[in-house]
Amino acid sequence: MKKAFGIDVGGTSVKMGLFGEDGTLLEKWSIPTRVENNGVNIIPDIAASVKEKMAETGLSREEVAGVGIGVPGPVDDSGVTHRAVNLHWEKEFNVAKELSDLLDGMLVRAGNDANVAGLGEAWAGAGRGYRHIMLLTLGTGIGGAIIVDEKIYTGITGSAGEIGHTFISDDTKEICNCGNSGCLEQYGSATGVVRMLREELASSDEPCLMRGTKLTAKDFWEAVKKGDALCIRVAEKFGRYMGRALSVAAGILNPELFIIGGGMSMSGDVVLDYIKKEFEKHIFHACRNVKFVRAELGNDGGIYGCARLVLGNE
Amino acid sequence: MKKAFGIDVGGTSVKMGLFGEDGTLLEKWSIPTRVENNGVNIIPDIAASVKEKMAETGLSREEVAGVGIGVPGPVDDSGVTHRAVNLHWEKEFNVAKELSDLLDGMLVRAGNDANVAGLGEAWAGAGRGYRHIMLLTLGTGIGGAIIVDEKIYTGITGSAGEIGHTFISDDTKEICNCGNSGCLEQYGSATGVVRMLREELASSDEPCLMRGTKLTAKDFWEAVKKGDALCIRVAEKFGRYMGRALSVAAGILNPELFIIGGGMSMSGDVVLDYIKKEFEKHIFHACRNVKFVRAELGNDGGIYGCARLVLGNE
Repeated sequence: MKKAFGIDVGGTSVKMGLFGEDGTLLEKWSIPTRVENNGVNIIPDIAASVKEKMAETGLSREEVAGVGIGVPGPVDDSGVTHRAVNLHWEKEFNVAKELSDLLDGMLVRAGNDANVAGLGEAWAGAGRGYRHIMLLTLGTGIGGAIIVDEKIYTGITGSAGEIGHTFISDDTKEICNCGNSGCLEQYGSATGVVRMLREELASSDEPCLMRGTKLTAKDFWEAVKKGDALCIRVAEKFGRYMGRALSVAAGILNPELFIIGGGMSMSGDVVLDYIKKEFEKHIFHACRNVKFVRAELGNDGGIYGCARLVLGNE
Repeated sequence: MKKAFGIDVGGTSVKMGLFGEDGTLLEKWSIPTRVENNGVNIIPDIAASVKEKMAETGLSREEVAGVGIGVPGPVDDSGVTHRAVNLHWEKEFNVAKELSDLLDGMLVRAGNDANVAGLGEAWAGAGRGYRHIMLLTLGTGIGGAIIVDEKIYTGITGSAGEIGHTFISDDTKEICNCGNSGCLEQYGSATGVVRMLREELASSDEPCLMRGTKLTAKDFWEAVKKGDALCIRVAEKFGRYMGRALSVAAGILNPELFIIGGGMSMSGDVVLDYIKKEFEKHIFHACRNVKFVRAELGNDGGIYGCARLVLGNE
């Protein structure tokens, strides 16, 4: 049985995993992401680490099905990335080909990090057994991925699933990181929730468990669970934006399953409950039977999905 | 070279076409749709007409690649329809299998009518040469289809692309045909445009070319082209809702091309211009390079797409 490497490139570290053909994670390690000099060392560092691990475990070239790599930027289905700001990559280049060349022509496939995390969940996590899946990661921002029959739906330039930067409401005039205003990310991410909480706190003297604390999404959801009235109002706002956005996504994609991941999903099913309440009000009857679950693989979703890029795609 | 039948089932007539393998429409005719008795005659009538045409043109069973059929309701990728109100079909059944059984086991594939119309445009119309396409039909309602690499993206129950019933705004309290309120169809369809025009006319005595006329979307767009100020305001509203909705669809799907069809598209590129103006304001930069074109095949899109279901899918 052939093995595979799954490599998830983040802005500070590169997570690496060695997998068995059946999806078993055999070993996991990480190396620093060297972003200096426009990140020219990142791919060579990864190639060196893969070779080192092969030597260390006595794996021959023939025993490796290939390497999957996820990067934080759009990647089209030929493996070309156009930009990855967090890695200081500013030029367009073929990530898959560059890594493959450094690994003596080994099979390498590349994907966007949110997309491969979605693929990982579909293959080995909360999405096992489902055919049409949309994954959302609710963290500092909002990532999205569409997985159909264990394949990533990339769109024409690798940006499909980018629901975080779709317009949801002009209730805020603040500018989003993307340059537009009114993006879902401004309401539904951890950052968005904290912004709405800060505004709500500033608008009155109403008592609230969060007053005088360092405002974090984690503590916010704890306060919601404890019944804090002000926080519950903010959670309802969060649910209203997210529920509406996901009802639109479901109307367009007709998925079987929404997987909610990212830091905020760790706060429990309460996060899903607020989304579902609004979702139910707007969803078209023909697309109604979609389930909501939380991601299962946490930070490992990416390396699982990367491995899946090169395993079981016969 | 094998031939194929493309059959588009509507509420009043069934459009039928005989196609060459290269997509040439060789012959076109129609039969009435007999909806009485829960539409039990519809499929047998179609089978009889196909057999008659084969006899008339001397086509043997071996010379026919198959039959594609489009129906006005969700159809999943196994050919099962769950309901088609306009045909008085209330039960779930396998359209493809039922027609195939009446044609001595001939290959039959079934699809939703909007989806096959999209496939037709992708294959032989405005979408030739594009890989990722979303088609919208703006008529009495709004239909939608997602076509990737000349294949229909159906979603889990055949309802993908149903953007007409996604929530866009609660500016109206009227109830949509689907039972919800605030659906895109209530603003972006011909019916929606006429509703907004009626409201605008009632709100003031401002002169308008449409006053005292039978309000139709066709005349409305003519008035817009003539520079009628009130109609232009309504067109801007139309563009605002449609542009926002399509920016969301583009953020999720990252398509290469939007094809706008249906009755309203006949009024010219002015319809697209109002959509694009608002679209540009909201679209995420990574999904920005999407083109807008009008459909080319008119009412024949459906039969083309149906033929494509059984041609060239080796």
